Amino acid sequence: MDGIDFWFSIGSTYSYLTVMRLSAVEAAQGVAFDWRPFDVRSIMLEQDNIPFAKKPVKAAYMWRDIARRAAGYGLPARLPAPYPLEDLARANRVALVGMREGWGRDYVVETYRIWFQEGQPAGSEPNLGRSLHRIGQDPERVTGLADAPESKRALAQETEAAKAAGIFGSPSFVVGAEVFWGDDRLEDAIAWHRHGRLG
Amino acid sequence: MDGIDFWFSIGSTYSYLTVMRLSAVEAAQGVAFDWRPFDVRSIMLEQDNIPFAKKPVKAAYMWRDIARRAAGYGLPARLPAPYPLEDLARANRVALVGMREGWGRDYVVETYRIWFQEGQPAGSEPNLGRSLHRIGQDPERVTGLADAPESKRALAQETEAAKAAGIFGSPSFVVGAEVFWGDDRLEDAIAWHRHGRLG
Repeated sequence: MDGIDFWFSIGSTYSYLTVMRLSAVEAAQGVAFDWRPFDVRSIMLEQDNIPFAKKPVKAAYMWRDIARRAAGYGLPARLPAPYPLEDLARANRVALVGMREGWGRDYVVETYRIWFQEGQPAGSEPNLGRSLHRIGQDPERVTGLADAPESKRALAQETEAAKAAGIFGSPSFVVGAEVFWGDDRLEDAIAWHRHGRLG
Repeated sequence: MDGIDFWFSIGSTYSYLTVMRLSAVEAAQGVAFDWRPFDVRSIMLEQDNIPFAKKPVKAAYMWRDIARRAAGYGLPARLPAPYPLEDLARANRVALVGMREGWGRDYVVETYRIWFQEGQPAGSEPNLGRSLHRIGQDPERVTGLADAPESKRALAQETEAAKAAGIFGSPSFVVGAEVFWGDDRLEDAIAWHRHGRLG
């Protein structure tokens, strides 16, 4: 059976929880995830889906919920992290280059760590250069690739593919025709992958 | 230690899952929940928090997510159920009268059953009279009480209390100063109630 598509955007807050625990979940559960960066912001704007901006009560709850769940997973977090990101698209173009070259997961984990544990927003400096440097990649070479028109087209294509799959938020997990949205649906996605049902 | 406040509005879709499973959860876990109806719609309008109207992709996902989770809990469901309710406030005033008189939970379960399993919206006829009749209450007497100014004041007061507690959606669970939002946070609320932390 195929694995599970893990669609995500660096820039999503709840995706921190998934990015940081997914490798351990994969190892423990014996399920493979295909990491697929896309531009969630363009889909959310297109669908007028703005969950936190101008909603202070809901935004405050979101950070508290993430704090409790991060602690429950044993993940450090300095919250609230800077939000929203100024350059979400660039962060995800770098991730896409990395997925093609084989170091994408390492970059995503590292950039989220710097964003959520050290307080520097992903997608811009100093996070961008620092995260690439820490995983042994040359920032100049990589950002050159990530800023090229071909990378912009590639991210737009992946974003269209996400939308075609019914995705509207990050993180999302796709098992066959089923979409599971949210870090809190990761276990549902694994159950569906295994048994074709929940419970 | 005190129990957990279960704040809910008849009219919330995900609250179907909680309402139908909460008695079994209480019995299995030995935790008491205080069922507190409020008017989530007035809070959501006030906070410009409109998650599904004019968001067809997200709304379609919501029904599919509920269908999968209902099946996982062994709950029948004829979906999508009629939504949104025309008279959310009335349904919750009846629930408030019922909580005061001791039959509130039975009514909430029955009106949700008729709404989500038989396709008749809660808060209006024939669901209102039928659900009261089935639990042995006189619809005329109860709706007379529920439509009286005192009941409208009481629901407004409970809604203010919910807002003061930081609640913005239904279902929500409150443990001390901590708010947990969503049927999918019921287990988090119980863990927090027991251990003061998750995981």
